[in-house]
Amino acid sequence: MPSISQKGKSMPESPIRKLVPFADAAKSRGVKVFHLNIGQPDIETSQYALDAVRNYSEKIIEYSPSQGNLSYRKRLCEYYANIGIDITPDQVLVTTGGSEALVMAFQTIMDPDDEVIIPEPFYANYNGFAKNAGINVKPIFSSIDSGFALPDIAEFEKAITPKTKAILICNPNNPTGYLYSKEEMETLRQIILKHDIFLIADEVYREFCYDGKTHHSAMKLKDVENNVILIDSTSKRYSACGIRVGCLVTKNKDVISTAMKFAQARLSPPTFGQIAGEAALDTPAEYFDEIVKEYLSRRDVCIEGIKNIEGAFCPVPQGAFYLVARLPIDSGDNFCKWMLTDYNYNGKTVMMAPASGFYSTPERGTQEVRISYCLKKEDLKEAMFILNEALKVYPGRTNK
Amino acid sequence: MPSISQKGKSMPESPIRKLVPFADAAKSRGVKVFHLNIGQPDIETSQYALDAVRNYSEKIIEYSPSQGNLSYRKRLCEYYANIGIDITPDQVLVTTGGSEALVMAFQTIMDPDDEVIIPEPFYANYNGFAKNAGINVKPIFSSIDSGFALPDIAEFEKAITPKTKAILICNPNNPTGYLYSKEEMETLRQIILKHDIFLIADEVYREFCYDGKTHHSAMKLKDVENNVILIDSTSKRYSACGIRVGCLVTKNKDVISTAMKFAQARLSPPTFGQIAGEAALDTPAEYFDEIVKEYLSRRDVCIEGIKNIEGAFCPVPQGAFYLVARLPIDSGDNFCKWMLTDYNYNGKTVMMAPASGFYSTPERGTQEVRISYCLKKEDLKEAMFILNEALKVYPGRTNK
Repeated sequence: MPSISQKGKSMPESPIRKLVPFADAAKSRGVKVFHLNIGQPDIETSQYALDAVRNYSEKIIEYSPSQGNLSYRKRLCEYYANIGIDITPDQVLVTTGGSEALVMAFQTIMDPDDEVIIPEPFYANYNGFAKNAGINVKPIFSSIDSGFALPDIAEFEKAITPKTKAILICNPNNPTGYLYSKEEMETLRQIILKHDIFLIADEVYREFCYDGKTHHSAMKLKDVENNVILIDSTSKRYSACGIRVGCLVTKNKDVISTAMKFAQARLSPPTFGQIAGEAALDTPAEYFDEIVKEYLSRRDVCIEGIKNIEGAFCPVPQGAFYLVARLPIDSGDNFCKWMLTDYNYNGKTVMMAPASGFYSTPERGTQEVRISYCLKKEDLKEAMFILNEALKVYPGRTNK
Repeated sequence: MPSISQKGKSMPESPIRKLVPFADAAKSRGVKVFHLNIGQPDIETSQYALDAVRNYSEKIIEYSPSQGNLSYRKRLCEYYANIGIDITPDQVLVTTGGSEALVMAFQTIMDPDDEVIIPEPFYANYNGFAKNAGINVKPIFSSIDSGFALPDIAEFEKAITPKTKAILICNPNNPTGYLYSKEEMETLRQIILKHDIFLIADEVYREFCYDGKTHHSAMKLKDVENNVILIDSTSKRYSACGIRVGCLVTKNKDVISTAMKFAQARLSPPTFGQIAGEAALDTPAEYFDEIVKEYLSRRDVCIEGIKNIEGAFCPVPQGAFYLVARLPIDSGDNFCKWMLTDYNYNGKTVMMAPASGFYSTPERGTQEVRISYCLKKEDLKEAMFILNEALKVYPGRTNK
């Protein structure tokens, strides 16, 4: 039997998905599982997106242009103009989700053994995309104790080598919910300017900012236009994860023309996704006002829940819909698994993602879990209660 | 300004797309261009697929499972059972088009510098996917003079090195329209068995076979179940290129579980595409009977057209909807470009793909062009007439 690749063997399994078989087993035993492990919003998809697909009237579902439909790219430019980002349709490449935009960005600017610096904890699939491209992730440490703020400029300088091609940030952050300040963005600007490297900014949660805080897009940084690559997605913004449409945006002509070669090889992004994505741009601002209000109240339920657990701690996230909490436990991996295999409270339990999978440095985040607050408040309240009860009997609790 | 990757710099541009700016320029001068360059069928999409999307009634367009919807995978198994291929839903990974299935197959079984043997001419994007994965294509020569038949077993033996991990075939073939015989499939079986390498079989044109010929799927080869990876797609089958849904099928458990890790990193295939793809499987056999009859008559128009050109030659394709013709010209690249920049017959011209882009060996296929017969017969007739007229005045004609 022929063997699979070393790349395949070393490809990390998603930390969010590896507990799925245990959750399935729990469900088959009749246990109700609260899913705090994934970022699948329960918010209804923008009606504009749904209607556009239902009203599709073409007789042939043709390939779209590799770069994405021009009408969609034009509308995206209007969307960006509204938030102060001035771009043209030829600076936009429509992709199959933010995932493909990241893969294309990596391929376009990095060769095997090149390095990308990412503040950890970070979105676990960045590891997979890096493995995929044969490049190395150099993590720099964002500590839970400093609220997951950007590390000191000195930490970046220490991590930069001749192989460093880019810094990658997710803002607001998945998994921490951290929102980068204007000062932090300025720090990043100085670093990429000094070292002439790329800044890849994953801003798919841009609309989800709380407590009156403002999002500062990397696309607005001055004098580094050729260094910035924006990664975007319709998935969370319009609660349309299944349409698989995102985009890569950059003013750097070499980057867009090279990314286009990779785009042409895969022919085109999904037609229906683009139709939904384009129509979704008509969604009125009130849609977001409602959603942000809802997520904010959900966040507060979780924060309150964590506070009620003796020995637990989490910074207050100011964006996205995730938080990372430190729990009084031996191991997030063990605990999250145990919740599914050994525990239930009146036939109910909670599924979370062990945070270790969001760090690339071994042994970091072992006591932490990522909680996604995509459920209704009542469910979240119950889930937080169950979490507290579970910790009272968890054999690996550290502050008994 | 930071530089792009070597990989990006050396990524080949699609031979089908590189003439597009010249076609656009011709159109802007008011010239009508017959598109014999791309495989975008003009056949109406299966009504089942269109209806399913229009009737979508969910309120949230959620992520689907990374492996694809189970209901869809089950229906795919029924489809395959109907054509004598016995598989189970866990042996199917739904992908974003056949393109993604190929990329995942390459990543799963090959590391950088590994080799894949492909009979040339071959689908040009195989080059891009190989570049992408850092692997090397070892072409073996299928000559137009032998009708693009599979080269001798000795040619394979010569090409196989310790780095050879797979043979890749497209059957029926794009760009040649060649349909592999039972004997040729048996030859491939013996080679992969002897050397214990993979056979990747791209069978996306399976339904399009002519002259009563039978398609012999690699999935039916005996005793090499663990060596075969099937690449499939809904694009051409149901004339639904824009839905971006295909699949990777294999009985090799290591391959499917490893491919799944890559699939998880990109989250999921498109929801609407899967809905369309699943419903398309209800399309009655008569749909294909009609289409095959239509393509057959189109093929014959093209064959007749080529025959009428003095010094031109093409084998009669027995599958897909492409043919490769040798023309009495200095260079397919020059000629195809000239057709767009310098020639028109009563305000009309023809766009074809230079065949050189389908060979990875330099200087091969320089006098050849690929013709896609996705247009209506009347248009094809006119296009073939224009081609003949153009050759009468083309400065680079070799048999004046």
